[in-house]
Amino acid sequence: MRLKEIAALVGGTLVGDPEQEAARCSSLANAGPGGIVFLEDKKFVPQLGGRRPACAIVSPGMRLEGINVIEVKNPAIAFATAMDALHPAKKPAPGIHPTATVHLEAKLGHGCHVGPYASIGAGSRLGDNVVIHQSASIGESTAIGDNSVIHPNVTIYPHTAIGKRAIIHAGAVIGADGFKFLTGEGGRRIKVSHIGRVRIGDDVEIGANSCIDRAMLDETVIGDGVKIDNLVQIGHNCVIGDHTVIAAGCGIAGSVTIGKHVTIGGLVGMADHITIADNTFIAGKTGVTGDIGPGIFGGGYAMPINEWRRAEVAYRRGPEILRRLTALEKKGE
Amino acid sequence: MRLKEIAALVGGTLVGDPEQEAARCSSLANAGPGGIVFLEDKKFVPQLGGRRPACAIVSPGMRLEGINVIEVKNPAIAFATAMDALHPAKKPAPGIHPTATVHLEAKLGHGCHVGPYASIGAGSRLGDNVVIHQSASIGESTAIGDNSVIHPNVTIYPHTAIGKRAIIHAGAVIGADGFKFLTGEGGRRIKVSHIGRVRIGDDVEIGANSCIDRAMLDETVIGDGVKIDNLVQIGHNCVIGDHTVIAAGCGIAGSVTIGKHVTIGGLVGMADHITIADNTFIAGKTGVTGDIGPGIFGGGYAMPINEWRRAEVAYRRGPEILRRLTALEKKGE
Amino acid sequence: MRLKEIAALVGGTLVGDPEQEAARCSSLANAGPGGIVFLEDKKFVPQLGGRRPACAIVSPGMRLEGINVIEVKNPAIAFATAMDALHPAKKPAPGIHPTATVHLEAKLGHGCHVGPYASIGAGSRLGDNVVIHQSASIGESTAIGDNSVIHPNVTIYPHTAIGKRAIIHAGAVIGADGFKFLTGEGGRRIKVSHIGRVRIGDDVEIGANSCIDRAMLDETVIGDGVKIDNLVQIGHNCVIGDHTVIAAGCGIAGSVTIGKHVTIGGLVGMADHITIADNTFIAGKTGVTGDIGPGIFGGGYAMPINEWRRAEVAYRRGPEILRRLTALEKKGE
Repeated sequence: MRLKEIAALVGGTLVGDPEQEAARCSSLANAGPGGIVFLEDKKFVPQLGGRRPACAIVSPGMRLEGINVIEVKNPAIAFATAMDALHPAKKPAPGIHPTATVHLEAKLGHGCHVGPYASIGAGSRLGDNVVIHQSASIGESTAIGDNSVIHPNVTIYPHTAIGKRAIIHAGAVIGADGFKFLTGEGGRRIKVSHIGRVRIGDDVEIGANSCIDRAMLDETVIGDGVKIDNLVQIGHNCVIGDHTVIAAGCGIAGSVTIGKHVTIGGLVGMADHITIADNTFIAGKTGVTGDIGPGIFGGGYAMPINEWRRAEVAYRRGPEILRRLTALEKKGE
Repeated sequence: MRLKEIAALVGGTLVGDPEQEAARCSSLANAGPGGIVFLEDKKFVPQLGGRRPACAIVSPGMRLEGINVIEVKNPAIAFATAMDALHPAKKPAPGIHPTATVHLEAKLGHGCHVGPYASIGAGSRLGDNVVIHQSASIGESTAIGDNSVIHPNVTIYPHTAIGKRAIIHAGAVIGADGFKFLTGEGGRRIKVSHIGRVRIGDDVEIGANSCIDRAMLDETVIGDGVKIDNLVQIGHNCVIGDHTVIAAGCGIAGSVTIGKHVTIGGLVGMADHITIADNTFIAGKTGVTGDIGPGIFGGGYAMPINEWRRAEVAYRRGPEILRRLTALEKKGE
Repeated sequence: MRLKEIAALVGGTLVGDPEQEAARCSSLANAGPGGIVFLEDKKFVPQLGGRRPACAIVSPGMRLEGINVIEVKNPAIAFATAMDALHPAKKPAPGIHPTATVHLEAKLGHGCHVGPYASIGAGSRLGDNVVIHQSASIGESTAIGDNSVIHPNVTIYPHTAIGKRAIIHAGAVIGADGFKFLTGEGGRRIKVSHIGRVRIGDDVEIGANSCIDRAMLDETVIGDGVKIDNLVQIGHNCVIGDHTVIAAGCGIAGSVTIGKHVTIGGLVGMADHITIADNTFIAGKTGVTGDIGPGIFGGGYAMPINEWRRAEVAYRRGPEILRRLTALEKKGE
């Protein structure tokens, strides 16, 4: 693509040669002829180390000596847009691999790809251009919307509903039984069957080896635009609001209601039956045992982040506090 | 089923129409004609919102105007029993899928189902009515007891022993090598081979993408009736006592001995070579580095839960403590 | 093997019968005729309980009445060496299973084994004696070095490079997209495409169901000799130095640089863009949000381990501190 085309695509202003060609995006460390880099802030210029990319996408007003720039209000989004244009995701060719097992009572839309050893159960319906990769297991009576991609070794239990443009990474498990046991005679654990399902909205991405349990009754709901990282556990009957983001390693117990536009850092744990308000931000490794939000929270036991930081400072000064307290006591004797 | 049949099944007393039919279980929010709900406590009645289920399973003495009730000592267990009767788990038909690979030297009992792309290694023995789902990998010399269900994409390493009625959810890995490395010259890590195995008792459920490592020598043991949630790590040579429950995201290091009837919340970490007594209860996110129990424990470093709660209150008051201490010091000058 | 052969193999000195045969390694609890045990310290002798193994591998100077010993400077390494000699890992026979899918444009070295339902994508190159187990998915343009073993249900995304003698346990996912989203209009999350790759050195072991994300641009790098336990998350663009060890359940966010010979306990969380120095030791469950090392660290918020221990003691005495403070205040009134 020529720089003038890229500038138009990203809604930016080109300062430089409009006919210059760019073929790829790169990091500053691997910048070179024909490449486009992203430079949000002048402080990162030294990382270029004299390399000469074809163009840098920059914040308004930034100039780089001898390098074409496209200035744009949000250079990060512009660079992501350029990436998608210059490095489009490779889509596997439509068709059902001869080794795949598609049930006669499953329905596939136009342009679907079903990879080797994948299986699609009875009564399932795939939209158009859905990609099912190797060894993915799509249970019975499952719906998957247009343009969704299911990566290898994913397991979708029966009766799951997945929206359009979903990306489900390798090894994820959607719809396993929730973890609910009653205690019977002699402390024996009695399994509570799960007859609910998982319903996932549009534009959702679910990370590798993450797990979303089906509801006991009714539905576990993942809203539109939710992004879930790798190795995340979502318990039965949770409801995750639209455009919420959950980083790797989180464990969300059952029946948790999380609002919209919530941001949850890595390794956060949440107890069951709590509610997180819209727009809440939860720092990594926080433990949440009650309703919180909106606001910014952190700590082993969630608290407003500034309170937590001050408490943490005092925690570190605990030995000093003990010494000062003992000194005062001696003085008073 | 008629309500009189359900009342008999769950050992409860019907107050209402014995001939009324019920076809399904539902939540209060989705209650309706022909449905059975579960109402342990009067305080949940508003959630019914005027809906009229065929019947409610309730605690002794509870009455609902115009709704049949079955009263029973433990309504939660009764409802679970009704669920199993009205919504029996769908068992796949017996038979070996033409794409499956069953070694000539493997033995299968009566009524087994082996799904597409599943493989069963040499010398393995399956009991009766075992279900092996798609792409599950059952290694050599492995035993699986009657009525067990192995979900898709599970990997069972060779020489594993699994009891009866096990449920192993998708993506779980049983019997991978434990994590033990010695440090050699130049800091090079030397792998210690693992020649032990995993032995799992009867009535065990293991969650999606959980991992149980084989012993270095001897056995990693999961007792009867143990229930393990998703994304749990059990290290090599652990021994987990009967009817113990471990919630999602826990990491149990090697050679940990956990007693019977222990309850472990989510995201708990345990250091290696420790012992947890029978009937211990460990709150979510606790870190355990030494022997504990019986009793109830919590905290980043495990402590009796009431001590932990009080310590946590003081932690939050740390900044206040510092101010008060400084004020006292000034006063004394 | 005869004891004189084992002594020579492990570089130790035999005190006892050189012609005695030994056939297997065992624990102290299962010691018996023909078996070799490992006894680093006299204090473990009672665990033998009068059992009579063929030989014990011991620290220099240790003697056991009536039992042959091989004394050696590092008995743990010697025992591991004996284990490998007496219990060599069973290698599956070379050959491509008839159900496997190997792309015409993939290249395999000598002696490779490709198991049932495994798939190897276009342009991929396997070295000699590589083992690909059941249902493993090897994407396009991926390189795997000599003698590496890929266990069942592993997913390797396209363009990954893996060195020699790698062991990748079941369910691991290498090369999924990193977790990076920008926020667009209305709080909508915009995916940033990932066009980088994962590069893994020689002698690396990766645990079951662990995930290593591809770089956004450039590479996520796992150095030589790195050992990663089960259920570990390594974010995009991380660089892990040679011979570093990461225990189960850790979550390492994006762009973290970890030095060489670092030891990281279980369930540790690391924030993005931080640097860990060579030879750092991080205790289990530590949270790391800034650059640290070298040294030994622990705590919810990483601190030098001795400071952390003292702070933790003061934390537990928090309620006592409050009481003493209040008493002082009353006294001063």
